[in-house]
Amino acid sequence: MTAHLNRARRSFEMDEAVAILEKTPATLDTLLRGLPQGWIAANEGADTWSPFDVVGHLIHGERTDWVPRAKIILDHGEARAFDKFDRFAQFAASEGRSLASLLDEFATLRQENLREIAAMRLTDADLDRRGRHPELGVVTLRQLLATWVAHDLDHVVQISRVLARQYSDEVGPWRAYLRVISGQQG
Amino acid sequence: MTAHLNRARRSFEMDEAVAILEKTPATLDTLLRGLPQGWIAANEGADTWSPFDVVGHLIHGERTDWVPRAKIILDHGEARAFDKFDRFAQFAASEGRSLASLLDEFATLRQENLREIAAMRLTDADLDRRGRHPELGVVTLRQLLATWVAHDLDHVVQISRVLARQYSDEVGPWRAYLRVISGQQG
Repeated sequence: MTAHLNRARRSFEMDEAVAILEKTPATLDTLLRGLPQGWIAANEGADTWSPFDVVGHLIHGERTDWVPRAKIILDHGEARAFDKFDRFAQFAASEGRSLASLLDEFATLRQENLREIAAMRLTDADLDRRGRHPELGVVTLRQLLATWVAHDLDHVVQISRVLARQYSDEVGPWRAYLRVISGQQG
Repeated sequence: MTAHLNRARRSFEMDEAVAILEKTPATLDTLLRGLPQGWIAANEGADTWSPFDVVGHLIHGERTDWVPRAKIILDHGEARAFDKFDRFAQFAASEGRSLASLLDEFATLRQENLREIAAMRLTDADLDRRGRHPELGVVTLRQLLATWVAHDLDHVVQISRVLARQYSDEVGPWRAYLRVISGQQG
């Protein structure tokens, strides 16, 4: 590492992206499995998601978003827009399920999807290929895969934040120091 | 669970707090161990912390903050203010260390500290006991322990956010949808 390195931005490297994507199911498993039900179902108020909801959302992404969209790019380019992603599918799909079964399913689907991605043997030229998002317009395969990574981490942020905020009252005066509770970006 | 339950606030329960505190070293281990050095050292720009810095900070907390302060409350009450916590101690203490050794040390210290807390056999009356924070004033042991939990999760939020933001450019148009990158609270 040199002092000139920008430590706040990284360029996309396939092997690095895969290294992070491989970890997410285990990270969420470690963070959540075995927590009391009240924490699993906790949220941030009306119309916000619980950890349970988020895991269901990640499962739906494995089924309908990342790899299916990668295939649309490779097969159709910009000619065929992606199917819209249903941000609320998990509310029906997860009903009656246990968190443990959702965590298991997420891990299995992620592993299968990364196997599919590996089998594509994507080149740099492939990563530059363009597709069409129904709302955002033209995007590249590289951007799709980078978003898969950032989206995972965004939801690890969300789940940790939802859990932390359950103690917004209990921390008392310390709330001023806890950015996750005070709401300050840190 | 009933519809009347407030899912955005929980009251402090010792066993629940311990369940979360026990998980944090393994969560960070799963999230970080084996990531490329560039991600371990990544930050959000000048004077912000990398995942490596945060793990060092958590180690310093195990050594000087949570359990030492709990002991001060039990031994001295409000008569003796806590020692100030050094938010920058990790920059010297972690120098030349590997992330793997920091993760191992954090796990060991956390386990020892939870063993000490268990040995205290804290009652509800103990949790109401008051101490004095050098800046925040009077606090209770319950608030200290709740803050330990929320502080862990706050730093899981931070580390995940730092990692996600490395792809702020690479996600392209999707940045509008990723709250961790757009900066919107979600």
